[in-house]
Amino acid sequence: MVDLTELMENEVFMAFASYATIILSKMMLMSTATAFYRLTRKVFVNPEDCANFGKGENAKKYLRTDDRVERVRRAHLNDLENIVPFLGIGLLYSLSGPDLSTAILHFRLFVGARIYHTIAYLIPLPQPNRALAFFVGYGVTFSMAYRLLKSRLYL
Amino acid sequence: MVDLTELMENEVFMAFASYATIILSKMMLMSTATAFYRLTRKVFVNPEDCANFGKGENAKKYLRTDDRVERVRRAHLNDLENIVPFLGIGLLYSLSGPDLSTAILHFRLFVGARIYHTIAYLIPLPQPNRALAFFVGYGVTFSMAYRLLKSRLYL
Amino acid sequence: MVDLTELMENEVFMAFASYATIILSKMMLMSTATAFYRLTRKVFVNPEDCANFGKGENAKKYLRTDDRVERVRRAHLNDLENIVPFLGIGLLYSLSGPDLSTAILHFRLFVGARIYHTIAYLIPLPQPNRALAFFVGYGVTFSMAYRLLKSRLYL
Repeated sequence: MVDLTELMENEVFMAFASYATIILSKMMLMSTATAFYRLTRKVFVNPEDCANFGKGENAKKYLRTDDRVERVRRAHLNDLENIVPFLGIGLLYSLSGPDLSTAILHFRLFVGARIYHTIAYLIPLPQPNRALAFFVGYGVTFSMAYRLLKSRLYL
Repeated sequence: MVDLTELMENEVFMAFASYATIILSKMMLMSTATAFYRLTRKVFVNPEDCANFGKGENAKKYLRTDDRVERVRRAHLNDLENIVPFLGIGLLYSLSGPDLSTAILHFRLFVGARIYHTIAYLIPLPQPNRALAFFVGYGVTFSMAYRLLKSRLYL
Repeated sequence: MVDLTELMENEVFMAFASYATIILSKMMLMSTATAFYRLTRKVFVNPEDCANFGKGENAKKYLRTDDRVERVRRAHLNDLENIVPFLGIGLLYSLSGPDLSTAILHFRLFVGARIYHTIAYLIPLPQPNRALAFFVGYGVTFSMAYRLLKSRLYL
């Protein structure tokens, strides 16, 4: 069996692994937030989910949409749309031998911006809080993509 | 050209590659399921998709939503929300040198739970079948994230 | 610190990194397209987003859905559903030592098909333009998954 510890001893890669794990864990908590609001507000989308609350017509009244639940779901989808490019581009960027402090600055800005985006979406804070958080994360990912394509393009 | 076979000779990594490929292939089948229900039930969302079924006003009646199609789409989105963290965290976990049998147990539980989740969503089975399947997959991913952050945190 | 340049000197991996970065950047542009249509058409989903356009009841009229915005969002979600499997399976496929020209053919077809899919969705072109673009990308991903599972299955 080959020893892979050398990859995990690379500092940029370890930093990427840590920040990626943190932001993915944060994203997963959005599922819990959705479930929490669905249960406390009794707002469901599948008939089998509210079967406990009554039978037949009585249960149907819980099949509705709710502003708060939809808000969490939009924040979750926005996370997915932005964290997927960060994971893909960030992994390749980490392997392309960037400067350690530059790389960590990218990862920190992205993770901070996405956490602030979620807070700004869920409270909600007035604009442009959420828009700024979005564009910081967006810019960080494009900055890594630019660095990668400039130095390593192979088509 | 560098020989990368050493990475692919690592047993944990090979196991991750196999399980990740299987669960991603399963997820892709959800697109086919959506297309199947859209075509057999004549339920479309884009005007150009049902142009064959009639012109003008006649075609518009197929632009509607259908319970079964929406159910498949929700299962697909739930897959995406859960398989993305598994891919990211699972890849980094595989590279962090975990015990082989522990790692395989994680991968098997996740893949089994997600397949069962899809079955429970599409039939649908009464709750808590789907909720349990969801939480097994969720717990497995958090268990890998915890292992990763405990042993390799680098911020 | 370990030198990872050997991974980035692998030609298949470099090609994968380039094509993955390009298609992820393209996917991120969908967010900008959504924002562009939301602002130019004044179509919003969050009350805080249109607070500038008026107060109270006056602002509520901008909380609506629009065909063009929904079309961009569907194209974005379809990207996400197809690019995530490409990233996961493509990364593992790249590491499994495939033939360089075969690998590049896969990557080029996928990236070309997804760009064409977006064009066909947004203009929109009559079917089966979009369906064909979808199935080319889908087939490429399954072809890589098949190659991976045939040669490296480890369960």
